Amino acid sequence: MAQIPNKSAQQTAQYAVPTSADVARLAGVSRATVSYVLNNTSAVRISEPTRRRVHEAAKELGYVPHAAARSLRAGHTRVVLMPTPQIPAGPLFSEFFNELQWALSRFDYTVVQYGSLGLTGEEAARAWAELRPVAVLAPGASGLGARAVDVLKRSGAKAVFTLGPQRTEGAHALLMDQRRIGNRAAEHLLERGSRHIGVVIPEEQGLEPFARPRAEGLRQTVTGHGRGATVTELPLAYDEESAARLAARWRTLGVDGVFTYNDEYAMLLMRALQDEGIAVPGETAMIGADDLVLGRLLRPRLSTVRIELPSGQKLAELVDRVVRDPGMEPGVHDVLGATAVHRESS
Amino acid sequence: MAQIPNKSAQQTAQYAVPTSADVARLAGVSRATVSYVLNNTSAVRISEPTRRRVHEAAKELGYVPHAAARSLRAGHTRVVLMPTPQIPAGPLFSEFFNELQWALSRFDYTVVQYGSLGLTGEEAARAWAELRPVAVLAPGASGLGARAVDVLKRSGAKAVFTLGPQRTEGAHALLMDQRRIGNRAAEHLLERGSRHIGVVIPEEQGLEPFARPRAEGLRQTVTGHGRGATVTELPLAYDEESAARLAARWRTLGVDGVFTYNDEYAMLLMRALQDEGIAVPGETAMIGADDLVLGRLLRPRLSTVRIELPSGQKLAELVDRVVRDPGMEPGVHDVLGATAVHRESS
Repeated sequence: MAQIPNKSAQQTAQYAVPTSADVARLAGVSRATVSYVLNNTSAVRISEPTRRRVHEAAKELGYVPHAAARSLRAGHTRVVLMPTPQIPAGPLFSEFFNELQWALSRFDYTVVQYGSLGLTGEEAARAWAELRPVAVLAPGASGLGARAVDVLKRSGAKAVFTLGPQRTEGAHALLMDQRRIGNRAAEHLLERGSRHIGVVIPEEQGLEPFARPRAEGLRQTVTGHGRGATVTELPLAYDEESAARLAARWRTLGVDGVFTYNDEYAMLLMRALQDEGIAVPGETAMIGADDLVLGRLLRPRLSTVRIELPSGQKLAELVDRVVRDPGMEPGVHDVLGATAVHRESS
Repeated sequence: MAQIPNKSAQQTAQYAVPTSADVARLAGVSRATVSYVLNNTSAVRISEPTRRRVHEAAKELGYVPHAAARSLRAGHTRVVLMPTPQIPAGPLFSEFFNELQWALSRFDYTVVQYGSLGLTGEEAARAWAELRPVAVLAPGASGLGARAVDVLKRSGAKAVFTLGPQRTEGAHALLMDQRRIGNRAAEHLLERGSRHIGVVIPEEQGLEPFARPRAEGLRQTVTGHGRGATVTELPLAYDEESAARLAARWRTLGVDGVFTYNDEYAMLLMRALQDEGIAVPGETAMIGADDLVLGRLLRPRLSTVRIELPSGQKLAELVDRVVRDPGMEPGVHDVLGATAVHRESS
């Protein structure tokens, strides 16, 4: 179809888009090696240092192979679909997703985040299926059931993963058991001598899927401990007024240790308690979660539960393995690690 | 094509997906009214309170009209494509994007974030065009030029917007001039008596598109002020060691006021200065940016530049207007507001 080019179409493109030849040059290898490494061809043996050099060169140049060309060769898209979380992810998960995205792009996948706000289950799956993803990574909150997994597979998805607390039939599970974070917080506070333990329940919408299991895990551990240890739930909105109100009635609560859901709520509550003249950890020990930089900037320095998520590279390898072998029996991968880090607030 | 249903396909769906009838019931209006409001039909007059009731009911129920059904009716997709930013967005922009996404979903659009890492210009546009978006909102860093805009329009995009510091021919511009933030910070520090002004330049990758213009804006204002006022650039990585090194040589710098790029770097630097015995604001006035809650939790409370972004609702209305009238002359919308907020640190 002939078209008269308009003014803007006549201008010259000036974007220096990096090519695989640029990557090969920077890494000091052949273009074939770049292709083998970035397509993760297992048929060819390439040494680990060479692989690393190619990945680093690709990252430095911002080189990503072209998805369209790839999908023509491969006969299907290279789209990995991730439903957009319903709430903005915190810094820890943002970084995790960003790293995963880079790692998948080095395997030549294109990550598409799909804003299926309000859709769940099969309806969500049908909407996602329209993009013909080769793989789907669905967070727990999307309520994906076995039928929804089936919808995706019938549309051509070779790998369906769920990220969350539960397994779904037919899907590979990346289990993230948030209770473990509460377990570690409770163990730490009990070890440091607390017996009447408060647990902050954020009032912000959308945090329930994280806050509830963290509180539940804490309760499990405290109840298991026995010897009269108690749990008090402390609803708290992320603003100064809510924190001041909680601090004002703190001494009536008889709480001698508190798990604050995460480091940001810890900072909020610590300030309110200190403004009220309540000593941390003297009167109340405190532990957060996420191990953010800001916790180390507080005085006293904040104890925290460090959360370990798998590296983006590892997860991208797993996704790629399942895409290449879609008949693989769905596996369960326990991916959330948690350890208490003792500083000065507990 | 007959297919033998497998085990999982035989199970019954158990997802209570909200329908427009549910929304109508909760809002106490007819289904037609729900449709008029959520499709933003201008042909029918509906009072503001009724509109609000319908939107609130839809939000509460998590109701989103089905994109596929809509696109059949409309003859094109309802996909609004936003390239995923190359770095995790800070809390301010995360919230802005989340709000925009909700607002667009209430206009029946589906927001798709496309992870075109490393792609720019026409190559990026070609990759995006594969999804046949009806509208594209491209951040400045994607290097979209006039030809790329043309690629998108030829693929059927009715509205192409750029978000960033510059206009692109053929696209509607949502101008976000980051220099303004530096202007406001400098004016504030000069007014409060500073003459030798430091400006933090984060060393973290990916922040240059924000950090550079903020520093540039600060320099403009300080230079314009004259009377011997000076600017010192202060590279700083977001970790305690880097902050401690900067604080250790602080007094040799002769800086009496500092703009810290944002509130998080302010918290980091304030702690390091205080640990070094340097009084804020006594020896050095300090101002951050973003007006995060954490700034109010610092002692002294942090002065900051509050950044105003347009409401998601307003922006969604604009996107929808252009989609309905694609011949509209591309406009320039100045969307970033900035005001200094004085607290105790300056």
